[in-house]
Order: sequence, then structure tokens, then C-alpha cells
Amino acid sequence: MTSSAAPAYRRMTVEQRRTQLLAAAVDLFGHRSPEDVSVDDVAAAAGVSRPLVYRYFPGGKQQLYEAAVLGAAQELIGRFDVPSEGPPTERLSDALDRYLAYVDEHDAAYGALLRGGSVAETSRTDAIVDDVRRRAAEQVLHHLGVSAPGPRLAMMVRSWIASVEAVSLIWLDEGKQPPVAELRAWLVDHFIGLLLVTATTDPEAAEAAARALAQETPDSPAGGLARRVAPLAEAVAHLLPGAS
Amino acid sequence: MTSSAAPAYRRMTVEQRRTQLLAAAVDLFGHRSPEDVSVDDVAAAAGVSRPLVYRYFPGGKQQLYEAAVLGAAQELIGRFDVPSEGPPTERLSDALDRYLAYVDEHDAAYGALLRGGSVAETSRTDAIVDDVRRRAAEQVLHHLGVSAPGPRLAMMVRSWIASVEAVSLIWLDEGKQPPVAELRAWLVDHFIGLLLVTATTDPEAAEAAARALAQETPDSPAGGLARRVAPLAEAVAHLLPGAS
Repeated sequence: MTSSAAPAYRRMTVEQRRTQLLAAAVDLFGHRSPEDVSVDDVAAAAGVSRPLVYRYFPGGKQQLYEAAVLGAAQELIGRFDVPSEGPPTERLSDALDRYLAYVDEHDAAYGALLRGGSVAETSRTDAIVDDVRRRAAEQVLHHLGVSAPGPRLAMMVRSWIASVEAVSLIWLDEGKQPPVAELRAWLVDHFIGLLLVTATTDPEAAEAAARALAQETPDSPAGGLARRVAPLAEAVAHLLPGAS
Repeated sequence: MTSSAAPAYRRMTVEQRRTQLLAAAVDLFGHRSPEDVSVDDVAAAAGVSRPLVYRYFPGGKQQLYEAAVLGAAQELIGRFDVPSEGPPTERLSDALDRYLAYVDEHDAAYGALLRGGSVAETSRTDAIVDDVRRRAAEQVLHHLGVSAPGPRLAMMVRSWIASVEAVSLIWLDEGKQPPVAELRAWLVDHFIGLLLVTATTDPEAAEAAARALAQETPDSPAGGLARRVAPLAEAVAHLLPGAS
């Protein structure tokens, strides 16, 4: 018996074994197209037999895939739950820190959750992904002091979340460049910019922006952006009334 | 013979028949999950026999699906091709007008192109969708005078395109509210806001923004946004140096 096969058959609790098999599956689904992952692959990666995998996941590959997606979703949803204290852009920055740390540490699972176009995707896994987006949007709106958003504000938050997902996937594709702190700061800037431009036409967004800005400080992400944006006033002066 | 069956068997050229079958397929794929569409459904919708569908699409459903996705992709890519004249935000607005008109007129095809999670999705259809995104990004960058973008500017444009797609799908889900002109204006505002916040940390984005702003006029979308944003200066005054 080789030394690599030995530890895989060590005595584990049911929960430990389930966790081990799921981790192997998440790793495989994240690195290959789910079409190219078989129950045999999962068994081999975990160093166990195929019947053992079926004992824990009688639904085979489809059940493993759904469990992987659900596990990643629950983790991600938890990342948005930050205390309702301090400037809202600081809270958003903290939530994004936690979200991007997940993307970084569990890149395989994040990819498995969000990259579509797989035979293992079903309306059930789509619903799980939609749930992550919905919960993330609720958290963001909560920190803006909004519980029942109108259509424009809801669309704004969902569109920013779509950007965060797209950017996270691009970031993984590009070898995790730029450094995560830069990426997070830029995504926060993006949110502030989007909220402010939306505030110029949507009264509800204007109220939310005013409420948020009143809680911001010079040291918060919004404060930093305000200082960096201020010099652009000159570049737009020719667009404003009274321009010579 | 009923009147609805009669015209379907009228003499058509090969190209007309192919177009007719494809239109029926696009309509079905757009309104149902591709899993729930069969070659028989396409034949019934076009009022023709199943063998006739196979004569034109020997690959059956998969070939119909890929042809539908490719057709939608080529249409969409063409929409981004607007003249390189006038303020860049006006050009972006024109391109978005054309893009959203496609989304509006061909909602089924747009949904079929972008909603993932289907058994008919393959790496080939994924590549088609990626091509639309890549070409759209190239067009946007072209109007910013950038042909070989650095990583941040490239990521910025791709993230905005992800927002446009997400917003278009939400817009279709919500019965095409708000009116398309409002949606288009807001997406242009979004782009300007994103470019300006990115310009505060990325030198290449700063150059592109300066170049674009120099071409903008008070009547352009950028001019309109500048006037609407200016009053917000008061709301951020406490974040700037010299605040009391």
C-alpha cells in the first residue's frame, strides 16, 4: 500500500468524510468543466472507492455538483454580513474584503458557482446563484438604509453586483492581478460613482446617497474618492453653465 | 387544410426557409429553457415536418441552438459599430440605443444568447458570447482612443459591459421598465461615472478620460451629467480638506 492511499482510508466521521468528498468535488468542478468530471475522478481525488462516493452522495455527480454550489453560496452570502456601524463605504469595503477573500481562497468553488454553460447546471443551481445575488443586494441596500427599494435603486445594486462577479472572474483569469486591496478599493469607488450618478436622476437614490454621505468621514473610502475626484472639476468646467 | 398550415409549405428559397426555421427556433429558445425545446417543437412552430427541419439543420437541436446564438451575436456586434465623430458619450449613447433596440425587438434571442445554464450551452456557444463581449469592449475602447488597453482600463470596460448585460436581462424581466431612453441615459451615466472614478487611480484611464472630456460639449450626455452632478459638491464638502 502506498503512503498516499493510506491516509484516505483512515477512520473519519460521517461528516468528515462528506466534507472531504465535497472538497475534492469542489476542487475538480472549479478546475475543469463539470462535463469533464466523473464520480470516478472524485473518488480518485479523495483516494476512496467509487461505491464510497455513492454511499455519501447517492445522486452521484449531479448531487455533488449541487452540494458544491450550495456550499459556496452559503459561504459567500455570509461574507456580506458586516456590522451596521461606521461610514457605509467602510462597511461596503469590509464586506468586499470578505467576499474577495473567498474568491481568492476558494477560486475553484467560486468558478464552479458562477461560470455557467455546464450540463450540471439546472434551474436548481441557477436558483442558488440567484439567491446569492438577491441576498447580497439586500445587504448592500440595508447599509444604505433601504429595505424596499424602488426599481431604479434595485437595478443599480444588481448591476453593481454583476460587475463585482464579472470583475472577480476576470481577476481569477488574470492571475489575481491587481492585488486584492486595489481591486476592492476600485470596486468601492465604482459603487460610489454609480450611486452618485444614479442620484442625479432617481429621487430614492438621491436620498440614499445623501443619507450615506452624511455618515462618511474624510478617512472613509468616500472621503478618499472625494479628494481624488475634486481635481477633475477643471476638466469638466467647459461643460458647465458660465463656461467661457 | 387550415389557413395557418397553408402558408408554411409555400415555396421558399433555401435561404428563406433556413431563416424561417431559425426564427422559429430563436423564438422557442428565448421563451423556454433550451432543455424544453425539441426539433418537433421547431417543426410545429414553423408549420413544417420534422424531416424538413433536419434537412436544413442535420445537427438537429444543437445546431439550431448554435445558429440562433451566432445570429444574435453577429447582430449585437454590428450594433456597436457607430461613426467615430462627435463627443464620445454621444457615440456611446448611439451604440447603446442600437444595442437596446436589439434587446427590445429580439428579446427572445437576447435571452437565448445570454442566459446560461442550459444543456445546449457548450464551449462553442460560450466562445460566441465571449466574442460579443470582446468586440463590444474593443468598440468602446476605440471611441476612447485606446487600442491596447492596460489591465485596469480593460477590466473597467468589461465590467461595464457585464452591467449592461445584467441590466438588459433585468429590464426584460421587469416588463421593459423604465422606458428604453431612460435606461440608455442611465447606462451612459454609469459609464462616465465609472471612467471618472477609475481615472482617479489609473493613469491610462485618466488620459482617456481627459481626451474624452475635451471632446464633450454642454449638450452631450457628459455635459448633462456634469450639470446634474455639480450640486452634489455641497454634500461631499465635509469630506474635503479645509472642511470645518
